[in-house]
Amino acid sequence: MAQASSKSRAKETGKDSKKAARPLSADLLDKMHAYWRAANYLSVGQIYLLDNPLLKKPLKREHVKPRLLGHWGTTPGLNFIYVHLNRAIRERQQPMIYITGPGHGGPGLVANSYLEGTYTETYPNIDHSDDGIQKLFKQFSFPGGIPSHVAPETPGSMHEGGELGYSLSHAYGAAFDNPDQVVVAVVGDGEAETGPLATSWHSNKFLNPARDGSVLPILHLNGYKIANPTVLSRLPKDELTKLFEGYGHTVHYVEVGDDVDDYASVHQAFAATLDTVLDEIAAIRAQAAKEAKAGKPITRPHWPMIILRSPKGWTGPKEIDGKKVEGYWRSHQVPFSDMTPEHVDALEKWLKSYKPKDLFNDDGSFKAELAALAPEGALRMSANPHVHGLVSRDLKMPDFRKYEVKLDKPGRTVAEATRVMGKLLRDVMKENEAAQNFRIFGPDETASNRWADVFDESGKTWLAEHLPEDAKNDHLADDGRVMEILSEHTCQGWLEGYNLTGRHGFFSCYEAFIHVIDSMFNQHAKWLKTTKDIAWRRRIPSLNYLLTSHVWRQDHNGFSHQDPGFLDHVVNKKAEVIRVYLPPDANTLLSVTDHCLRSRHYVNVVVAGKQPALQYLTMEQAIKHCTKGLGIWDWASNDEDGEPDVVMGCAGDVPTMEALAATDLLRQHFPDLKVRFVNVVDLMTLQSKSEHPHGLDDHEFDAIFTTDKPIVFAFHGYPWLIHRLTYRRNGHDNLHVRGYIENGTTSTPFDMVVMNQVDRYNLAIDVIDRVPRLQKIGAHVRQKFCDKLIEHKHYINEVGDDLPEVKNWVWPY
Amino acid sequence: MAQASSKSRAKETGKDSKKAARPLSADLLDKMHAYWRAANYLSVGQIYLLDNPLLKKPLKREHVKPRLLGHWGTTPGLNFIYVHLNRAIRERQQPMIYITGPGHGGPGLVANSYLEGTYTETYPNIDHSDDGIQKLFKQFSFPGGIPSHVAPETPGSMHEGGELGYSLSHAYGAAFDNPDQVVVAVVGDGEAETGPLATSWHSNKFLNPARDGSVLPILHLNGYKIANPTVLSRLPKDELTKLFEGYGHTVHYVEVGDDVDDYASVHQAFAATLDTVLDEIAAIRAQAAKEAKAGKPITRPHWPMIILRSPKGWTGPKEIDGKKVEGYWRSHQVPFSDMTPEHVDALEKWLKSYKPKDLFNDDGSFKAELAALAPEGALRMSANPHVHGLVSRDLKMPDFRKYEVKLDKPGRTVAEATRVMGKLLRDVMKENEAAQNFRIFGPDETASNRWADVFDESGKTWLAEHLPEDAKNDHLADDGRVMEILSEHTCQGWLEGYNLTGRHGFFSCYEAFIHVIDSMFNQHAKWLKTTKDIAWRRRIPSLNYLLTSHVWRQDHNGFSHQDPGFLDHVVNKKAEVIRVYLPPDANTLLSVTDHCLRSRHYVNVVVAGKQPALQYLTMEQAIKHCTKGLGIWDWASNDEDGEPDVVMGCAGDVPTMEALAATDLLRQHFPDLKVRFVNVVDLMTLQSKSEHPHGLDDHEFDAIFTTDKPIVFAFHGYPWLIHRLTYRRNGHDNLHVRGYIENGTTSTPFDMVVMNQVDRYNLAIDVIDRVPRLQKIGAHVRQKFCDKLIEHKHYINEVGDDLPEVKNWVWPY
Repeated sequence: MAQASSKSRAKETGKDSKKAARPLSADLLDKMHAYWRAANYLSVGQIYLLDNPLLKKPLKREHVKPRLLGHWGTTPGLNFIYVHLNRAIRERQQPMIYITGPGHGGPGLVANSYLEGTYTETYPNIDHSDDGIQKLFKQFSFPGGIPSHVAPETPGSMHEGGELGYSLSHAYGAAFDNPDQVVVAVVGDGEAETGPLATSWHSNKFLNPARDGSVLPILHLNGYKIANPTVLSRLPKDELTKLFEGYGHTVHYVEVGDDVDDYASVHQAFAATLDTVLDEIAAIRAQAAKEAKAGKPITRPHWPMIILRSPKGWTGPKEIDGKKVEGYWRSHQVPFSDMTPEHVDALEKWLKSYKPKDLFNDDGSFKAELAALAPEGALRMSANPHVHGLVSRDLKMPDFRKYEVKLDKPGRTVAEATRVMGKLLRDVMKENEAAQNFRIFGPDETASNRWADVFDESGKTWLAEHLPEDAKNDHLADDGRVMEILSEHTCQGWLEGYNLTGRHGFFSCYEAFIHVIDSMFNQHAKWLKTTKDIAWRRRIPSLNYLLTSHVWRQDHNGFSHQDPGFLDHVVNKKAEVIRVYLPPDANTLLSVTDHCLRSRHYVNVVVAGKQPALQYLTMEQAIKHCTKGLGIWDWASNDEDGEPDVVMGCAGDVPTMEALAATDLLRQHFPDLKVRFVNVVDLMTLQSKSEHPHGLDDHEFDAIFTTDKPIVFAFHGYPWLIHRLTYRRNGHDNLHVRGYIENGTTSTPFDMVVMNQVDRYNLAIDVIDRVPRLQKIGAHVRQKFCDKLIEHKHYINEVGDDLPEVKNWVWPY
Repeated sequence: MAQASSKSRAKETGKDSKKAARPLSADLLDKMHAYWRAANYLSVGQIYLLDNPLLKKPLKREHVKPRLLGHWGTTPGLNFIYVHLNRAIRERQQPMIYITGPGHGGPGLVANSYLEGTYTETYPNIDHSDDGIQKLFKQFSFPGGIPSHVAPETPGSMHEGGELGYSLSHAYGAAFDNPDQVVVAVVGDGEAETGPLATSWHSNKFLNPARDGSVLPILHLNGYKIANPTVLSRLPKDELTKLFEGYGHTVHYVEVGDDVDDYASVHQAFAATLDTVLDEIAAIRAQAAKEAKAGKPITRPHWPMIILRSPKGWTGPKEIDGKKVEGYWRSHQVPFSDMTPEHVDALEKWLKSYKPKDLFNDDGSFKAELAALAPEGALRMSANPHVHGLVSRDLKMPDFRKYEVKLDKPGRTVAEATRVMGKLLRDVMKENEAAQNFRIFGPDETASNRWADVFDESGKTWLAEHLPEDAKNDHLADDGRVMEILSEHTCQGWLEGYNLTGRHGFFSCYEAFIHVIDSMFNQHAKWLKTTKDIAWRRRIPSLNYLLTSHVWRQDHNGFSHQDPGFLDHVVNKKAEVIRVYLPPDANTLLSVTDHCLRSRHYVNVVVAGKQPALQYLTMEQAIKHCTKGLGIWDWASNDEDGEPDVVMGCAGDVPTMEALAATDLLRQHFPDLKVRFVNVVDLMTLQSKSEHPHGLDDHEFDAIFTTDKPIVFAFHGYPWLIHRLTYRRNGHDNLHVRGYIENGTTSTPFDMVVMNQVDRYNLAIDVIDRVPRLQKIGAHVRQKFCDKLIEHKHYINEVGDDLPEVKNWVWPY
């Protein structure tokens, strides 16, 4: 006998949770059970069958696929939840989003999408006929067919779950500013062991019931992972309950009893529990609406959640070859795959246990009285327009030109680039306040990264407890649009969920620690690459990163905070979805920011400093420079009359300053030397056009960098990234790159560049060593620069700061 | 008035927790308080002072550092805990390891190490004198001095905490097989928001009190991060208690009351609580020892933990410029840094509040009656030999040759490489059973990755609940040496902690998902790089990865599971600590595994397949090949008589097979073509010797790859990695690399290589296109290979499997 039980807090939410324990009529129960059987039948069929889809003939080996792939274990549970949600959607006309944490349960989601008609609308070949079912089965996990996971190709999905851990943070991201939606996140008990998932439960302190949608987590305890029990399924119940109450939820259990075949009582228990939790959610929302209307602070609710304990591979074979399968890890993937005659029989028996003749008509169509259980139109979870990006408006953009940092001359004025960007973001927030479709995200670093002006427009969402002193300084607000939690994973997951449902954002992060989400970036980039070619999905807003507090200005936090390698990581992904920008100053950063916020379906990585730094380009120049992506800075070059002796290249704010200072040194000491100064803001221009759409044509590249002159290049990141991007270029053999070579400690800003030889003196020495005629006449000057480096070391060791002439350097021309 | 309270479970552990509420005598309390003041004084001094260390003169601006860096906020709490642990260590003669989760509290750990004498023993210049203190202060976060965080340079540290989230998993790793140690993990409430930390609480289900040491987590709620309240500090107390009881702990609170200056009562409360929890730990261990002796299963204990709620920046200035500092986020870093005369006065007042004259003698030495509070010798936490790697034995290694896969001819026999490796690991476990210093780690993948033979020797550690069916198949054991949890972060953290304390391990992971711990790898590689040059630390065992279930054999799970980019990530770190191996078959994998387990202070990344695959080298050949790192395979080459027409290079098991099959195709069709076949097992041989110690000399490289012949190279990972490693090589312009170019879906193994053009036909075409004389005579053959690719597509779309001739291919010569 299945049990439904609600723990403790139901009362606190003001809700009488005593509902009918058996809310389903006998007829409805029968039909729902049949619907579930249909989804399970189609799931097993997808995994196993090549032909004979409705078993009209006795099952033979040749009807079974030669290579068996897919995951059964989680699937019946996913299907069970799905059919119950369908009832609630219909009864309440409540739109829902279904997030499949165990994304390997692909067959189930495809099956449900097929049963409710969306699949055929999307893929007309797979129609409701015998032939359609055969194709549905064959294509699954079959070459040229569809992936085995809940993939971009699956209608209704915005979450693949290939890499586990992000279902809940995606769900919250989807719920933010989506007041009409209930986002149901099925969390697998395997996934629940991951770090990102374990902390994402705290997202409930950041969801405002008066403004946002709701998230209903369903923790699915099916007890096993690939080959082990799960931790949460092996906790005493009181411990498990405390854990989730401690996370802030009201906990409702539905547990399959010892008789796992007593389906009726589980249906009743789940239906009753679902009614209860949806009523609780409604009560929470009503209460919050009242508070909001009265201008009162929103009380943090203890949102309900469901813990469903059901056997892994439920309804599948109990045993195969004398070994336990249902309710055991053996059911995780394909429960049996060597197709002996006995196993073919077992498969036939298993499939027939769902009674396909009661589910499908002779022509293969789904019985009408069952099909009628599904919601209609956009209420079908597989057709929810939010998850296909269809409900997405572009941002209203203020004119970024008006935040211009005014310059008289280049390299004289000082500004904090990210602070200027913060003003633009503040106004983006303002302009889109009505549309409610822009938020910024960061791990406790919005102010540190100098975006603090946004607080003039909006606070930081916070629904946990308040203290009196908060009122003064903390910008905590229950309706803030700044999302901060000290978890890069959660920030990333929220923003992805927000993006995937069509809304816009920017994530600011310390450069070194963005590696925390390397693998999440991978998964999202793969999603973008695949969905780019799926016409029924709209291109979604770009995932925008500002990486600041970057490697060159982590002199105070030291070596552990110095890592520019996210760029290397990013450029491994498909060029068509990847953009990398290194604006050298505030005006270029403004231009780049505007571009990122207008773009769709990219990952835009912007690296920019937050410290006071020299400014180089007027807004007009900045726009031109960013449009081209790279260019010769005439004002810093003296090769007007012909070919240069050397090209000084740079990318990144600090390397740009050092390259300019090196140019200054060279011009002081070798007035005849022709230096061409090239700055790169769009890194991908360096790559060949055949590799990246932003890549320069070879002739353009050659015109800028020459094919035969030495190029000394000061780069923000690891130097070999520039080589990797340019190895096909004509001038590559003349290219000498300086960048971060993993040297660092707690020191000074200038010492950081010296340790890695990207400083002005080393760059100038590099030029002397590479321009033939300087090799003779330059020895004395070279020695002078070496002496300067020694003087530098001595000075900082004594005084603890940088040489005044370095610290106060400006472009003197 | 401070409160100490123990929640609920104390009784369950069979312990009467009613201890003296005020266990400290007045004298001891005074002295401990003075010791704490001394640590705080030295902490503030490190952050601020350049000179006048003991304030013998009135404080002036010039005594203050020009550039103020460091983190005060967390430091007094760390110091408070430290002095209390010292009492317990002395009283109980109990060795402890101190893990500083908030690693930015560097000044505190340096101060304590100084007070107990270790610092001076390690750095004799920093002695116990006025001059020594001045140097201690000046060096902190000063160029040429020491980092601001708890860094490798800090005695007693094995955990920097630069990137937050790993303190608990490090603590558990240190405690495994260390029965004498109590590992105290101070977890910051900022850090506690991270994903890795949030799931690492569940480590308590994997610690065996009869075999391992103990972990005492102290959650330090000081309420704020950089600029925000922390989530956990803003939960109602009952919710917080439930959360940690739900995580499986008995929860003890020590909370500073409203009068934050009432230090005496907090000292008494903390001392009483510490006595209680250490008694509880002792009782747990005694109980477990009894169970173990009786041969009974070990009951999972509810280990105690402490939640310490104290003001951020405790004992610091209450307000500065009318703004709250103590007990607020403003105290996070340097509480005030513009050194106006008022602020100099405030600093002097603050420093004098610790009464330095009562703490230090006139000569700057620490008062003897206070120094006497510290433990002695190796019992000092800053001198614990475990954290300096000093308690580390090499592994006893079985002869790996005896696991040889016997071959008659190359490329005919089939074996699963990682399964063979599993047999070696099984025996490593056996040989070192007595030493208890070897474990393997993985996220639920040990069996999937085919290391299952290890279960003959040892099970999987599991102290959560058992079900009857576990007995049959699951290899769950309370004393297992296989560590599995579905959290790459936790596996990595455990293994790092195990390595850092001198023990050995291997981590097996799906290749794509190792990116989950990219950032943890970064931090560990940085730790290795820095500690390599610290003579008082012993080189620790290498961090060993087996990446399997790799990109080419994720045809079943699809695109989300395909990512070979960890190699690119790894090679960004310092060459001196990085090794990358791509053994092409089982015997080479055995040789590489042996090498990894004998090595110290590297990160060894081994990529190898788990699927049945062709075997190429006998053990003798494998050893030679691995020793060189790369080499010409004579049996696959036909250029014996001179220069080749083309070099066919490869690295990785699947690309090696495709390259061999391509060679076969070429030899069939162009018997006169001279092909030199080169396989690379040690990837770093490709890089220049100036870049990596394993790099080949240029003349050796040229002798193998030629300087003028086309090289077609089939690579396991992203192709540009090979370019990045070889761009300085003479033959680089002739190098054509095929690898994973981010194309994939659910398909077949051969289709995976076709999609990315690393298949035999494409490789053969590449050769035809690059060998001048084939360009004329090869057109017909080229077309034939193109037709084969079309046939392949057609066949898999119809049959769903690979062409039999491809599937059954063996090296025919």
